[in-house]
Amino acid sequence: MARKVEVTDVILRDAHQSLMATRMAFEDMAPACEALDAAGYWSLECWGGATFDSCIRFLNEDPWVRLREFKKLLPKTRTQMLLRGQNLLGYRHYEDGVVERFVDKAALNGMDVFRVFDALNDPRNLETALKAVKKTGKHAQGTICYTISPVHTIERFVDMAVQLQDMGVDSICIKDMAALLKPQPAYDLVKGIKERCGEDMLIHVHVHATTGVTLVSLMKAIEAGADIVDTSVSSIALGPGHNPTEALVEMLEGTGYETGLDMEKVYSARDHFAKIRPRYKEFLTDFMGVETEIFKSQIPGGMLSNMESQLKQQGQGDKMKEVLEEVPRVRKDSGYPPLVTPSSQIVGTQAVFNVMMGRYQAMTGEFQDLMLGYYGETIAEKDPEVLKKAQDAAKKDVITCRPADLLKPEWDDLSAKAKDLEGFNGTDEDVLTFAMFPQVAPGFFKTRAEGPKNLGRDPSLTSGPVDPSHPGFLSQPIEYQVTLNGKTSRVTVAPQ
Amino acid sequence: MARKVEVTDVILRDAHQSLMATRMAFEDMAPACEALDAAGYWSLECWGGATFDSCIRFLNEDPWVRLREFKKLLPKTRTQMLLRGQNLLGYRHYEDGVVERFVDKAALNGMDVFRVFDALNDPRNLETALKAVKKTGKHAQGTICYTISPVHTIERFVDMAVQLQDMGVDSICIKDMAALLKPQPAYDLVKGIKERCGEDMLIHVHVHATTGVTLVSLMKAIEAGADIVDTSVSSIALGPGHNPTEALVEMLEGTGYETGLDMEKVYSARDHFAKIRPRYKEFLTDFMGVETEIFKSQIPGGMLSNMESQLKQQGQGDKMKEVLEEVPRVRKDSGYPPLVTPSSQIVGTQAVFNVMMGRYQAMTGEFQDLMLGYYGETIAEKDPEVLKKAQDAAKKDVITCRPADLLKPEWDDLSAKAKDLEGFNGTDEDVLTFAMFPQVAPGFFKTRAEGPKNLGRDPSLTSGPVDPSHPGFLSQPIEYQVTLNGKTSRVTVAPQ
Repeated sequence: MARKVEVTDVILRDAHQSLMATRMAFEDMAPACEALDAAGYWSLECWGGATFDSCIRFLNEDPWVRLREFKKLLPKTRTQMLLRGQNLLGYRHYEDGVVERFVDKAALNGMDVFRVFDALNDPRNLETALKAVKKTGKHAQGTICYTISPVHTIERFVDMAVQLQDMGVDSICIKDMAALLKPQPAYDLVKGIKERCGEDMLIHVHVHATTGVTLVSLMKAIEAGADIVDTSVSSIALGPGHNPTEALVEMLEGTGYETGLDMEKVYSARDHFAKIRPRYKEFLTDFMGVETEIFKSQIPGGMLSNMESQLKQQGQGDKMKEVLEEVPRVRKDSGYPPLVTPSSQIVGTQAVFNVMMGRYQAMTGEFQDLMLGYYGETIAEKDPEVLKKAQDAAKKDVITCRPADLLKPEWDDLSAKAKDLEGFNGTDEDVLTFAMFPQVAPGFFKTRAEGPKNLGRDPSLTSGPVDPSHPGFLSQPIEYQVTLNGKTSRVTVAPQ
Repeated sequence: MARKVEVTDVILRDAHQSLMATRMAFEDMAPACEALDAAGYWSLECWGGATFDSCIRFLNEDPWVRLREFKKLLPKTRTQMLLRGQNLLGYRHYEDGVVERFVDKAALNGMDVFRVFDALNDPRNLETALKAVKKTGKHAQGTICYTISPVHTIERFVDMAVQLQDMGVDSICIKDMAALLKPQPAYDLVKGIKERCGEDMLIHVHVHATTGVTLVSLMKAIEAGADIVDTSVSSIALGPGHNPTEALVEMLEGTGYETGLDMEKVYSARDHFAKIRPRYKEFLTDFMGVETEIFKSQIPGGMLSNMESQLKQQGQGDKMKEVLEEVPRVRKDSGYPPLVTPSSQIVGTQAVFNVMMGRYQAMTGEFQDLMLGYYGETIAEKDPEVLKKAQDAAKKDVITCRPADLLKPEWDDLSAKAKDLEGFNGTDEDVLTFAMFPQVAPGFFKTRAEGPKNLGRDPSLTSGPVDPSHPGFLSQPIEYQVTLNGKTSRVTVAPQ
């Protein structure tokens, strides 16, 4: 008897976020839903991450409507979302009341599985969201962001899994957004979690394909007992995206593991998205090969291009090598944060500042906040001298409490402000939209009645790349034209 | 202590054969040779396959000069070639004297490792070439073409390995040109060969990346004891090409296996080919995703496009589905040949004929020859009725001997004919070039003095696609424009 390995397909969310700048319109996904729903997936990731932002910023689509529509079209399969813990889908910490309301509303509108993560792996930033999910009766998935550094050991990741278990999660996700998880650590990590948390703790493995090794890592994770893995139908997969679902299924033949997926349905979805894909040519990542130097530099591709762009704007494109050498130092000084949005941009920008202006002569406000604990706790001690400098420059105290503990209730204030906006529809959902994207929501509310813009059908509708003119700029996604290995790509740097 | 896994890089031969129609000029490869030679590879595949043909047909390059130049530029690393057994690099069976002379001359000009294969896996078609290699003192590698069918079992492949061992080979290659080798069979096959042939028998695994699963298969093959694996530097890899060398190296970290490759050298070669690649844009395969339906259809991509093209020329493009269903039957009737050039074209074309004109109402000469044994022996019995029809139509006898046993010495005749050609340089090497490509060599000899044409620098120099006007046509490579999943690709159907 083969053991069943469950599959989550990310085609409706992370696949197009990773490969076509999150631009896919709902109407281009809807026709594939019947096949996807019938294929036998454990869940379909279809909401959260950058899709909410993209919906209101670029597509004139109401994300709450999108969620309800997906729920209707996927009656047999769990819907799944990616949630940035206390940040929700926005770019700052929210007060607990807002987090609870968001989770409630997402559940009511049709969300089944909440994958909750924090960029610093600080469990306190996950706590409120996970509790709120549990309260709704939906599936609360606690997430470990996988990274590599001298202090990130299997043991410490396993410790975090135990902390998540203690918080009552229904499953644990190993999230490898930069494709750093090699086969042997994948095996060791899954094995370690199963040993400490018990065989019954569901383990869900999320990897990207960027480095070319992670399908092998999925094999090893499965051999170690992983229960669910993330893949994407092959027509929107690979490169900085995910491993193809079809390859996963075929890989397992004869191994004693099987997915039980109905391949005819998967092929049907594949054929649909193969037709859709060329429409989004303008947004498609050009570089579809593999990039393995990240194992040495520990710097994700998106971060690399971000720094390159910042240097070039300052006319200092020749300083890239020094910046690359500065990054590990800044990372060490700041307590080895995982390099994922927003910490990757914070560390990268500070490294650029250090090279251009002398080490810690100038600091971004975000870097000061990272040093002082305002994003949460890091895994290692921070450098005391740099900490002192940050404190002096920011004229703020170091905090050791959960950052959201400093926030006052803000729902009433957000509601009042939202009410004044033209086009506000009076729902809590609209208040939440405004809360997360106070700059963008007002414009969206105004134009919402015009209906969705399909950038695939008419690419001229796009508002174009945002000018990354302020290097410390972190509050919204930035797009760059990046030339890597002689190929020019469009890269979006945006919170996950 | 980690076990060392040796690596052969195919960047100088199969990588550009698979991804850019074999068009890369020697001068675009030469600058990377110093780095490649210093990286620590077991061997570098750099000659044979379709490169000989491409040199004289498209590049006005003398392949023998190319070989000598490679040997000079790669003093520390074994050179390696792919040789089609009794067919050499041409498209028919050659008499033993010609085969022996070819091997002699290749060894003298700098070839170290001869990978010898036969499309039907008939060991008798490998015998003369392998013996000749042994006589020169060079490395004789016997090859098993991997395929899937109801009669191709691990046991029968292992039996073939034992036959090759009995023929005195220095190593055994498992050649998976269609990326059909899944992880579990890869493990079982390597294990099976090691058990029967002894742990000391070197096993070399060659896989393509087409289906997306074969890096996992390399992992499993290595776990089972494989000694050497084929990969390609990442800038010309993946899709119908090979798994990236860098991904293989990273994949193995911590597993107890290591390649010992100097990654700085590999990255240096990668950067070089990343710059070269865009120059050959016109010849580049567009479809770089994965294709897994071949596991169901057992029909390689190149063969599929070939049949599609044949049907369209006859205005019967709507018959594709019937043809796809006919292929397994024709394959069964003809004794389950592996579907590799030329058997893939022979079976595919016959399936097209069967659908268009009624089953076996018309037969190509090549299909008759396949049925009657003129390509060698197949693994399973042939259908007696179809055999009878082939015999009646061809008015030829069934043969059970080695096909080359029927050939008379031909060297003197070939020499005499070559001597009369304008530009013939009087060497045995030129006689061999003429022997293998009697249609193309005369033109090449005439223009040779003008020196190599670099199609990357000036794509207009290409003579353009050959018109595939005769469906039974098999004697030279054919190029098609193929639309697959909405993407148009250039496909070359050519002997391996």
